[in-house]
Parts: sequence; C-alpha cells; structure tokens
Amino acid sequence: MNFHILTTKSVKEFLLTIPNIKEFFDDDILVSQEIGDGNLNFVFIVKSQKDPTKALIVKQAVPYLRCAGKDFPLSRQRMSFEIRALQNYAKLVPSLAPKIYYEDEEMSLVVMQYLSEHIIFRKGLMKSNYYDNFAEHISIFLAHTLFYTSSLYLDSSQKRHFMDNFNANRELCKLTEDFVFTFPYMEHETNFIDENCLNEAKIFFSKMQFKRSVLSLKYKFMSQSDALLHGDLHTGSIMVNKKETFVIDPEFAFFGPFGFDIGALIANLINAYISHFYESGDKAYQEWILQTIKEIFEKFELKFLTLWDAQNESALITPNFIDAKTLSEFKKDFMKKVFQDSIGYAGCKMARRVFGIAGVEEIRGLKDANKRKEANLRALKTSVKLIENYENIENLDELMDIITKVQKNS
Amino acid sequence: MNFHILTTKSVKEFLLTIPNIKEFFDDDILVSQEIGDGNLNFVFIVKSQKDPTKALIVKQAVPYLRCAGKDFPLSRQRMSFEIRALQNYAKLVPSLAPKIYYEDEEMSLVVMQYLSEHIIFRKGLMKSNYYDNFAEHISIFLAHTLFYTSSLYLDSSQKRHFMDNFNANRELCKLTEDFVFTFPYMEHETNFIDENCLNEAKIFFSKMQFKRSVLSLKYKFMSQSDALLHGDLHTGSIMVNKKETFVIDPEFAFFGPFGFDIGALIANLINAYISHFYESGDKAYQEWILQTIKEIFEKFELKFLTLWDAQNESALITPNFIDAKTLSEFKKDFMKKVFQDSIGYAGCKMARRVFGIAGVEEIRGLKDANKRKEANLRALKTSVKLIENYENIENLDELMDIITKVQKNS
Repeated sequence: MNFHILTTKSVKEFLLTIPNIKEFFDDDILVSQEIGDGNLNFVFIVKSQKDPTKALIVKQAVPYLRCAGKDFPLSRQRMSFEIRALQNYAKLVPSLAPKIYYEDEEMSLVVMQYLSEHIIFRKGLMKSNYYDNFAEHISIFLAHTLFYTSSLYLDSSQKRHFMDNFNANRELCKLTEDFVFTFPYMEHETNFIDENCLNEAKIFFSKMQFKRSVLSLKYKFMSQSDALLHGDLHTGSIMVNKKETFVIDPEFAFFGPFGFDIGALIANLINAYISHFYESGDKAYQEWILQTIKEIFEKFELKFLTLWDAQNESALITPNFIDAKTLSEFKKDFMKKVFQDSIGYAGCKMARRVFGIAGVEEIRGLKDANKRKEANLRALKTSVKLIENYENIENLDELMDIITKVQKNS
Repeated sequence: MNFHILTTKSVKEFLLTIPNIKEFFDDDILVSQEIGDGNLNFVFIVKSQKDPTKALIVKQAVPYLRCAGKDFPLSRQRMSFEIRALQNYAKLVPSLAPKIYYEDEEMSLVVMQYLSEHIIFRKGLMKSNYYDNFAEHISIFLAHTLFYTSSLYLDSSQKRHFMDNFNANRELCKLTEDFVFTFPYMEHETNFIDENCLNEAKIFFSKMQFKRSVLSLKYKFMSQSDALLHGDLHTGSIMVNKKETFVIDPEFAFFGPFGFDIGALIANLINAYISHFYESGDKAYQEWILQTIKEIFEKFELKFLTLWDAQNESALITPNFIDAKTLSEFKKDFMKKVFQDSIGYAGCKMARRVFGIAGVEEIRGLKDANKRKEANLRALKTSVKLIENYENIENLDELMDIITKVQKNS
C-alpha cells in the first residue's frame, strides 16, 4: 500500500484490511488511541471494545521527527530497519521480543503484540522493583542476537548479505555518532547543562585525554561490523515484569561492534544505581542492581561461548585449522576485548546523558537541585573512569570497584 | 547491452558501436588478439592495423573461472567492482590507473588504455630493474585511495553510501578468506607443497600460536571497514616503467582494514628481495628493494597525515571537539596501528605464497631445487616472524632487522 499517515480513525480501517488481524479481532468493534512512544513515531493502541485485553500496537514512522514537527525531516525508512531487526528477533529470541502481526515497509508500519502486563524497565528500576529473571533473559538476548549475526556463526557470504539489509540505516547511525560520541563532550547548542553544573561542564569539556579515548570508541563504532546491534539498548527500550522481558524499538539496528549494546545496557543500570543514592537510599536495591550487572556479564559470556563452542564452522573458523586448546585461548582473548569494549561504550553511554540533549529521567528528573547535581557529577566521574581505563580493566571485580568507589569529588 | 561473451572477431564490431571508441580509432581497420590476464577473465588487445600504437585493452569477465572452465562458476559481477574501483581511481589518482574509455556492468566489460611501454612490476623486479619513482607513486596511490574513502575524510552518510557499492563483492572476499588466511596454513587439497619441503610444511602447519595470530588478522579483514581496498595489490597488479606506475586489476575491491593493501605490496617486495639471494645474488639491487620498502612506509605515512591534517571535518572529526595537540597524538597512535597491521598482513601475504595454491614466480619458479627450497624456507621464516611480532614492532628499523636477519634455519 502507498504510504499515507494513519490517524486514530483510519488506523482501525487499515487494520481490518489485513486478514490475520481481522481474524484476531473477530467482528469486534475497535477503539483506538494514540499513545506516542516519545520522540520519533506515531504509536496507536487498538483494542476490542467489548474485550479490551484483545489489543494490538501499531507503530508508524513519519518522514519527520514527530516531537519536533515537519520542519525536522527524518527518513521514515528507519521503520524498515526496525521491522528487519524485529523479524530477526522473532527467529533468534522469540520469547524476548514482541510478536509481530503485520509489517509493511512501504507504509513504514508494524503491528505488534500489546504488552499490557509489562512496564518500561527504566520505570521499574525507579520504583525499586526487583526483576530476578532479567539478567538471565537479557543475556540470552545479547548472546543470541550478537552471536548468530556474526562471522563466528554465519558463513562469509551470509554475513555480507545480512549486512546489506542494514547498511542503509545511515541517518540513525549518524544520530548516534553525534549525540553519543560527539556533542555531549563539547560546547554545543543541543546540550542541556544543568545550571548547577556550568563550571563542571566547562572542566569536563576540556578533558582531552578522555576525548581521545572517546574518539577511538567512536571510530570503532563507525568501522567495525561485528554483528547486528539493537543500537539503542537502554532501559527505556526494554519492557519487563517479574516473569518476562521484551526488547522493543530496534530502529537504530545496524552492524557494529559487539560491545555497544552491552555497554548501553550497563550504562543505564549504573545510572539507576547512582540515582538510588539520591532518591530512595535503598542500599539493598542498589546491591541488586550491582549483582544484576555482574550476572549480565557472566551469563552473556557463558552463553556466547557455549554457542560458539557448538559451532565448528563459520566465516572465521574452518574445521581442522587450529587445535582446541589454541582456539580456546583465542576465544578467551576475544571475549576479554568484547568485555573491555563494553565498558568503554558504557562510559560513553553514561557520559552522553549528563550534558547531552537526552538525559535519563532517574537523574535529570531528580527534583532536589543539590541531589541532581551530585548524581550528575557521580555519573560523570564514573563515566570518565570507565572510558579512561576500559582497555586495562581485567575482570568484573575491577569494574565493580570503579562503579562503587567513585565519589563525586574523586 | 545484454551479456554475451565476446570473441576475437566480435570484440572489434562491439567496440565500433561505442562512439568515443569509434572516434579513437577513426576509420582504421582493427586487428584484435586475445592475450589473457592469467586466471579469471578474457582480455583482448585491439589495435589499428596501420598504426599499432593506437590500441586499447578490452577486459571481460565470464561467469566462470577462465583458467578452469565452465565447471568452475564464479559470478561475473566481479567486473562491476573492478569498474567501480577504476572509476574511483580515475577521480582520486588519475595518473596511477589506466584511463577508462568505456565500462559496461551489464556486459561485465571494461575498455581501457593499453600500457604498451610498461611491464608488470613483478617481472621488472625479477630483471633487477630499478624504478626510482615507484615508492613515491605507490605511496600516493595508497595514501589517496585509503584516506579519501575512509571516515577520516568522508562524512558518515557518504561513507556508508560508498560501502553499498562494494559490499556485494562476496565471492572474491571469500577467496581471500580461504586462500590468504586459511588453506595455506593447514593440510588442504588446494595447496602446492614442494616435495623438498614436505617435512617443513608439516611443522609449519602445527604452529598454533602463529595460527592464532592469523585468525585475529582474518577476523579484522572480515569485520573492519576502514577504507576501499584494492584487495589484491601484489606486484603482479602493478605496471611500471622508469617514469610511470599504474595499478590494475582491482576486482577484489571492498571495504576492509587500512593495513591490507600496504601489507600485500610489502610482502611481494620482500619475496623479490629474498629471491635475489638465490637468483641474481645482486646485493645492490636487494638494498634498493629494502630502501623502497622503507620509503613506501615513510612516504605513505607522511602523505596520509598531510591529507588528514588538511581535513578539519569528517565522520570522525567534528571541529572544536578536541585540541590540536591531542588530535595529533591520536593520529600518531592511529598510524602506528596501521603500520603494525600492515606488517601482520604482509606476513600472511608472504606465508600464503609458500604452500598455498598461488606461488610467486620469483620463488616457486626457481629452477634449482635446493635454492627453491632455501628461498621458500626463508620466506616462511620471515612471514612467521612478521606475524608473531607485528603488534610489537615499533618502527621501520625493527621491521628491517626482521627482514634482513632471518636465516633459513633461524
């Protein structure tokens, strides 16, 4: 169907033209509501009037930045990459992504499962909710989506074919290059600097050795095509309840370095950890967050290596090329580099939230100005330590030391 | 025009349908001859009967491996990548690549300048010819083609657009992955092992730490998209005379690591250096080769950095992000990594010539069996030292020490 922008009214008519969705709703009368997902897209929830538990989500990209209006064009092609990434999740991690009922690249539109019993993970973390299955679930997500789209699993031709489907996601890669790796570390009109931190921002923007490391991480982000990334895996891109975990919104999907998604997730968990010093003061909950960070790394590495060990042949590995002992040493080195890169990217993903355009609610939303300042500065110090040291951090204990021992004035 | 395979007869008729070529030859009667370029393609020379200096080269890819016949299919799409790379050279390094008169991706065909006064660089090296402009020319080629197709020059979107044109060169990348990074280091039916070296091959195939380093270099080859590479820049892909240098045959072109083309070239120069111990014994000529290797590295780095210093904005660099001193340190680190990777790739490109399917004429072609064995083993030892040490080689003197001090029994 030719592209046209749906409204609360037309979305219902549109859905009923799709056979499996008509079947889903039977002959029920539909009600629809626009709920928005924040900044970029139109999102509708469409429900059965008589049984509101029968509901679907419709997400449509429009050729501009929804929150800013038509004067801020952004290609709606971004939805094609989201659709392709979701199709990939449906194959690789079906229990960890919303079920897709219909997708239409021409209409820049996807219809998916309504997660009525789940909340955004960031909100859950702010409420001090415990999610004891989360580390297990997300480590499956990370290990499976990264391993199965890499040269450690695919053959050479499959990998390059796969990349072809995402290489055109240029605009959103550029957003990351600018808003994660560049503008938040310099004077820039898009930044948001808390008036309590003007001096600290000035000092931060002058940390040249820190920026040299950021430049290395940015270069690797732009040039290293390890695996298909989600590309924006913060705690707002994850929905949870006690039992289940769902990853949503992969519109930034592209082939990039292994460490980037892991780093994004860890950064946002560290921000949650920091925020609780100033909001709840709940030490037990903070301990749970730290434990979750450790478990994610441990479980990810174990699962990733298990998948790798089961794969005797790939673009990289030819049977009988190398003996088992040496291959095992190679893998150990390889995983250590992924671990260290993850820490570097966690540092960038934390730092960009301090003075960059997009803050995190749990810190930028702190009402008390002094607490907000202290939380910001603690996040900043942590990120600087992560980025300055990531290539030399040998194990999880050293990482945990940095996260827990940074003081706002250290 | 729909694809059809040209013959010595039909190539003349075909050329005269192309206006600028008809103009080139005026109304002259044409004579044509198939000359072949070795393994993959059909190559014709078409000349004016009355003035044989008026001549053009026609190169056509066929959907199989020419030397092996129709039972060995190979996509003729490879010519599209050669055409695109040649178009790129015409813009970036017009004096270092043959002039293109006509290109036709549909016909998998390119018509180009006939280099009548030049010989294949490998042949010139075997004849102990001096080419005192070569280091200057090839360093321009390397610096310009690598810099101008990288994220250090292009903006983010341009770089990804550019990559789209080469990402489908899957088959030829796979050939490199197999025949440069895998088969020559293990028992494999495609290998060619001199009967004098059976025992040495066995020992070589068991060097596991060496293979671990090869695996790292292979992984980087597959996953790091720094710049548009020639992809097969050995001394047989270069034509020279005392005044000029031309790079030909870029059908392996794709986006890969900076060090790969430089390494390929250096490897073949080291092979030439080694061969002269056993063929000419001409120490002065060997000294010239060593000097040429040094100059290539020095001139490449200088030229690359000069281009980089002139570029204030790119996918990587945003003006005012970082101060000049720190950026200069970043560039120094960056160039050192490129230097070290080049040495690693030189090691692979040398080692694959010893027992792999494709030897080099100057060594595999040595008639005296003992000399051939000694040359092979010296090349092997050198390549092992390069690969085992590449990440720790700090400067050109250390590299030269390895090349000159390796003994066949060291």
